[in-house]
Amino acid sequence: MRLTPLFALGAALTLVPLATPSTPPTGLTGFSPAAARAERDWEAKFKAIPSPDSQRAYMRHLTARPHHVGSPYDSANAQWILAHFKSWGLDAHIERFEVLFPTPRERLVELVSPTHFRASLQEPTVAGDPTSSQHAEQLPTYNAYSIDGDVTGPLVYVNFGLPEDYDSLERHGVSVKGAIVIARYGNSWRGVKPMVAAEHGAVGCIIYSDPADDGYGQGDVFPKGPYRPREGVQRGSVMEMQLYPGDPLTPGVGATHDAKRLSRADAPTITKIPVLPISYGDAQPLLAALGGPVAPPEWRGGLGVTYHMGGPGPARVHLVVKSNWDLKPVYDVIATIRGATEPDQWVVRGNHQDAWVNGAEDPTAGQVALMEEARGLGALLAQGWRPQRTIIYAAWDGEEPMLLGSTEWVEEHADELRDKAVAYINSDTNDRGYLFAGGTPSMASFISDVAKDVEDPETHLSVWKRRKLADIRSARSDDQRRQMRASDVLRVGPLGSGSDYSGFVDHIGVASLNIGFGGESEGAGVYHSVYDDFYWYTHFSDTSFVYGRALSQVGGTAVMRLADAQVLPYDFVGLASTVQGYVSDLQKLVQAEQDEIAERNREIQEGVFAATSDPWHPTSAPPAEPVPPHLGFAPLQNGADSLSHAADRYAKAFAALAADTSYGAGAPAPVNALLLQAARRLTDKRGLPGRPWYVFELEAPGMYTGYGAKTMPAVREAIEQRKFPLAEQQIQTVGAVLEAEAALVDSAARMLGSRSP
Amino acid sequence: MRLTPLFALGAALTLVPLATPSTPPTGLTGFSPAAARAERDWEAKFKAIPSPDSQRAYMRHLTARPHHVGSPYDSANAQWILAHFKSWGLDAHIERFEVLFPTPRERLVELVSPTHFRASLQEPTVAGDPTSSQHAEQLPTYNAYSIDGDVTGPLVYVNFGLPEDYDSLERHGVSVKGAIVIARYGNSWRGVKPMVAAEHGAVGCIIYSDPADDGYGQGDVFPKGPYRPREGVQRGSVMEMQLYPGDPLTPGVGATHDAKRLSRADAPTITKIPVLPISYGDAQPLLAALGGPVAPPEWRGGLGVTYHMGGPGPARVHLVVKSNWDLKPVYDVIATIRGATEPDQWVVRGNHQDAWVNGAEDPTAGQVALMEEARGLGALLAQGWRPQRTIIYAAWDGEEPMLLGSTEWVEEHADELRDKAVAYINSDTNDRGYLFAGGTPSMASFISDVAKDVEDPETHLSVWKRRKLADIRSARSDDQRRQMRASDVLRVGPLGSGSDYSGFVDHIGVASLNIGFGGESEGAGVYHSVYDDFYWYTHFSDTSFVYGRALSQVGGTAVMRLADAQVLPYDFVGLASTVQGYVSDLQKLVQAEQDEIAERNREIQEGVFAATSDPWHPTSAPPAEPVPPHLGFAPLQNGADSLSHAADRYAKAFAALAADTSYGAGAPAPVNALLLQAARRLTDKRGLPGRPWYVFELEAPGMYTGYGAKTMPAVREAIEQRKFPLAEQQIQTVGAVLEAEAALVDSAARMLGSRSP
Repeated sequence: MRLTPLFALGAALTLVPLATPSTPPTGLTGFSPAAARAERDWEAKFKAIPSPDSQRAYMRHLTARPHHVGSPYDSANAQWILAHFKSWGLDAHIERFEVLFPTPRERLVELVSPTHFRASLQEPTVAGDPTSSQHAEQLPTYNAYSIDGDVTGPLVYVNFGLPEDYDSLERHGVSVKGAIVIARYGNSWRGVKPMVAAEHGAVGCIIYSDPADDGYGQGDVFPKGPYRPREGVQRGSVMEMQLYPGDPLTPGVGATHDAKRLSRADAPTITKIPVLPISYGDAQPLLAALGGPVAPPEWRGGLGVTYHMGGPGPARVHLVVKSNWDLKPVYDVIATIRGATEPDQWVVRGNHQDAWVNGAEDPTAGQVALMEEARGLGALLAQGWRPQRTIIYAAWDGEEPMLLGSTEWVEEHADELRDKAVAYINSDTNDRGYLFAGGTPSMASFISDVAKDVEDPETHLSVWKRRKLADIRSARSDDQRRQMRASDVLRVGPLGSGSDYSGFVDHIGVASLNIGFGGESEGAGVYHSVYDDFYWYTHFSDTSFVYGRALSQVGGTAVMRLADAQVLPYDFVGLASTVQGYVSDLQKLVQAEQDEIAERNREIQEGVFAATSDPWHPTSAPPAEPVPPHLGFAPLQNGADSLSHAADRYAKAFAALAADTSYGAGAPAPVNALLLQAARRLTDKRGLPGRPWYVFELEAPGMYTGYGAKTMPAVREAIEQRKFPLAEQQIQTVGAVLEAEAALVDSAARMLGSRSP
Repeated sequence: MRLTPLFALGAALTLVPLATPSTPPTGLTGFSPAAARAERDWEAKFKAIPSPDSQRAYMRHLTARPHHVGSPYDSANAQWILAHFKSWGLDAHIERFEVLFPTPRERLVELVSPTHFRASLQEPTVAGDPTSSQHAEQLPTYNAYSIDGDVTGPLVYVNFGLPEDYDSLERHGVSVKGAIVIARYGNSWRGVKPMVAAEHGAVGCIIYSDPADDGYGQGDVFPKGPYRPREGVQRGSVMEMQLYPGDPLTPGVGATHDAKRLSRADAPTITKIPVLPISYGDAQPLLAALGGPVAPPEWRGGLGVTYHMGGPGPARVHLVVKSNWDLKPVYDVIATIRGATEPDQWVVRGNHQDAWVNGAEDPTAGQVALMEEARGLGALLAQGWRPQRTIIYAAWDGEEPMLLGSTEWVEEHADELRDKAVAYINSDTNDRGYLFAGGTPSMASFISDVAKDVEDPETHLSVWKRRKLADIRSARSDDQRRQMRASDVLRVGPLGSGSDYSGFVDHIGVASLNIGFGGESEGAGVYHSVYDDFYWYTHFSDTSFVYGRALSQVGGTAVMRLADAQVLPYDFVGLASTVQGYVSDLQKLVQAEQDEIAERNREIQEGVFAATSDPWHPTSAPPAEPVPPHLGFAPLQNGADSLSHAADRYAKAFAALAADTSYGAGAPAPVNALLLQAARRLTDKRGLPGRPWYVFELEAPGMYTGYGAKTMPAVREAIEQRKFPLAEQQIQTVGAVLEAEAALVDSAARMLGSRSP
């Protein structure tokens, strides 16, 4: 699994703050000059170690056979990684959990009228691609955690299947009650599509890859080019991870052998209607058979047909999905380097190793980079390096079905993580191009500094510089461009969900980062298909594994720097500035909704919609809605201001300390124990409204986006869902969280100021 | 021929001014209360006359056979219309011109490598559509005024074939020198495509209809729906009408039998390279064969292939175009109603009658509405109505090849028109939906008032109200919406070219309007194909001809009101406000170009383009350019201010006169002789730089847009083409024109103020 690379999100990202803590020009944030020199020496030694050839060899091995959860090769890979970690001198072991993981037993999509057509649901062997023929071991194309079902109904095309698409259907007089919907992949977590379909009364859901978004519309298709061929299918989970990720039967606790489990019928994250993914080859006859209104322009994809909405027209479909609902083992490989002076401060680095099929780009490209980091750190240990803090490397299992391995591990170790976690650094996929980084706002400045010290293999600029120039080029406005030029910090977007950071940041409140390279070649074309394999990767992606090396260099350097810093390099000024932006965004959101609804109501009143309804193709007016009330944002504004002031005081104390030449190359300071709680203070243990598993109040996956983050979600989603009393209440909650964060930062500033940090 | 309906142009249109002359609430602008009552009585009688059934019957007759220039049925239709005009009591005759009109002799498009494919270049008969089988009389699919040629070369896809597309090709390393380009229809006058291709060294040009723009991507295709079928081809002229329209051999003079003619080799408006249009069915194998870089996302159309740019790759094409270059007759049918008191003030109303093939939507839907107007006015004459001014109804021939009939007539009658023309009102196509009106800014308020008095047949709102509400709905910004609500005046966009108003407004300076209905059903799907016929129109467009009646009501009312007004209802406040907007747009244009070029230069300097060039698919940086200098806009600003002040004085005098109850129901006032020169004052007899035929300084077809108007073209195009000394010089010219206009309006205000208007 993986997010859309953050690089591609463009203007949706929150911009980084202009003010950042002053970095000593030749030094490192959080290190005294002497300590910085030592750190840089070790980092230089580290960066020389990761090898493209090793990564290629690891990938060849790890992707040789399908290795999904529960498969023999998944278990074998875990053992193989474990052996490597051990061979490099790390203290490694496997942690096993037992999770609900459905695999297909029966799958059928057939058009039953006006003509008959049965979808192939099969990805054929491609000549020249040796692993594409391993049909016996491949998981069939399916959506994991679809409920079982056997349904027949009229077919309705619902575009991306998001709430606004159903509004449009309604205005065109098309209902999905009792219908099977066909949605195209994209613009949301795929699990949102059946959720919204079920909310509107649909009885089944088909999801397909439209060639405009994911096929020949993007470029030449495999094997001529890297893009999705006609029969390629995107597998993937459709669990309602917006409620909680991980094992559906053990929310909030580790899925150990003896864990107390929900019954499957009570597991709320399993879909309410059956779902199956299909290729565009299989989708074409279904879409061509649709009647009903012609779909609006923005709904039209790349199949050579006129897109219709369907409805009670000629096309009827029969959909069957049945799974084997077994408990399966997941094997997390955990390797530890104990901290020399602060063993109870943990820096965690992870990437998953399980795949939907052979999984070269997703996740092995990230996994082999992580392995080379582990090998490099092992080599430094042999040369005498000792990190101040404890470092944990994790090769997660079961990420694809639903972040199973990482979530269960986080839940199992929740108390320890709350006490000890300094940061979590995630990667998942890797390709050619530009560094992307999403993360907790306090980490943006840190990862930007790391990026300045790693070379881009194609341009020989720093990866920081290349990304910065790309951001300038893709800026959407003069103002954005100006901000990008003014700031030393890269754009670091908020974390939604879709990879293994979720448990850390969302459930515990661990400062987190998600990193990788992309933007030139992308794995999208073979994403979650049998063609995401060694042949594809070594023909169309980071074929020389030089971006794999760059990822090792970024990830390993970040881990080392966090493990060794005398004062943890969290950027509270950046955090406060981002928080101010979030608060201001919420106010703008209310204003925009007020304006939009008032305008729409006025247009309804004026008769605009009646006057512009074509009697041959009538559309109804949207319903009039009450204009949202003004909300009392003061608690949020006050909390944000408190945080800004505290952050300024902290930055001053930090700068004074950095300028204090008497401060030597000693061990980490006592203030760190307080600092590492800073991200935890941004949680509220009651969780977000309706989803208590999510406790982090700054950012979370949106209920109707999934992958995409909502900032200050408790307040934002209450506004978006027109729950204004709830919004008022959550403003209080989040305001209090910000005040608590400010108090912590103030305490830390006082400790730094006392010169005994 | 026809413009993209103005309704669809959205934000590109100049907004109407807020201030408009005060209309007496129960009266008519330019009429005393007593005169207004009489006028409204006659208008009511007129509006009851036009009959949908008559229009259907005329269309059935006129479209029964192909009737292009030089065909037997074209001549027969002219005679048939003449007979009708006469039968309704109008003084009618035919004026004949002899024009160069090439027709196909040899046509070939074949892929010669990597495989062989020969384009069919044939629109097949459609079962059920009786006239689609008239192959013997149909003009083959071709682009008129393509030069003869027989060329072979590599194929390059050039998107819409506009200058910026060639910039993109160059940045991707693809040259069109010696190549045959394939461009898709749209976004410009089709003649711009071969012109720009030739400028870049191409040796041939193919133009095709992409199904995303014009085919199944828009809706169901004919005969299931109204859109272009796989084999449908858009015929059309590719003459460089931006230099001058009309007969290529007789620029500036009527193409009478004895006119002095250029040799064909010296005619500058004939293309420089051979051109042929093809269907998307024929285009698909050509585009599928292309190699080279994958085309940028915005270049990709709706064919189920990956769009490539081509270049020196595998695909080579052989193109042959040869024509019979004959002189052919065109027959303009001219009907006159002599003015009772002001016979030397002419109101001209026209629509063409020739078609590319059977031409139901284009132009017969407009022609039959015009005929019902003529019948209605004839009936009023029989009842005793006498217009104050002379009315001329024209059924133009030869519009499709290049506005031949209207242009030659205008050139032949240029001196009379300069002396006498009050206004020209054009129509061309007609469909269901919303009234659209383009026109000279001084006419916007007038046509809006007319539109308030005609009922929309579907909603029973006035056509003014329906259009206003649609404009509010499609507004792109709050500011646009606010302006639309604040103004009584409809959006009336500037006139570019593409229909018979061009000679009037561009060559003489006659205040002009171009009107019609559209936006619900559009003729685009069969535009210039054999399928634009009676069967298509009566199944998919204004099937009950009620919009035909509405067009008759708008056109006829406008003609009557202009012919009878005591003071001509030109709106100089609206004109001045529009002119102020044009001047301000030019200043913003310079500022935007300065900013854009400075930013691009900075990015080149920063290395943005080098850093973001994918080494696997390299792109070069755009060239650095000098930042445009500041221009001295004062002459334009002063001219616009003079005009604003004069217009305000005129409006005050006009209002005082309207409030003067002693002013009775007399004949038109002497001031009109001055007023009708107002639009002429906006010309400069030296013409636009490089194209002396175009003398109107407010608006003209753009050199690289054709259909689309450029406002203050002499200045704007100099800026766009980076000819800054020329821009400075033209600012003087246009400034002087505005001062002359202001002086005329001031004189008129003084005449009105003297109470002896």
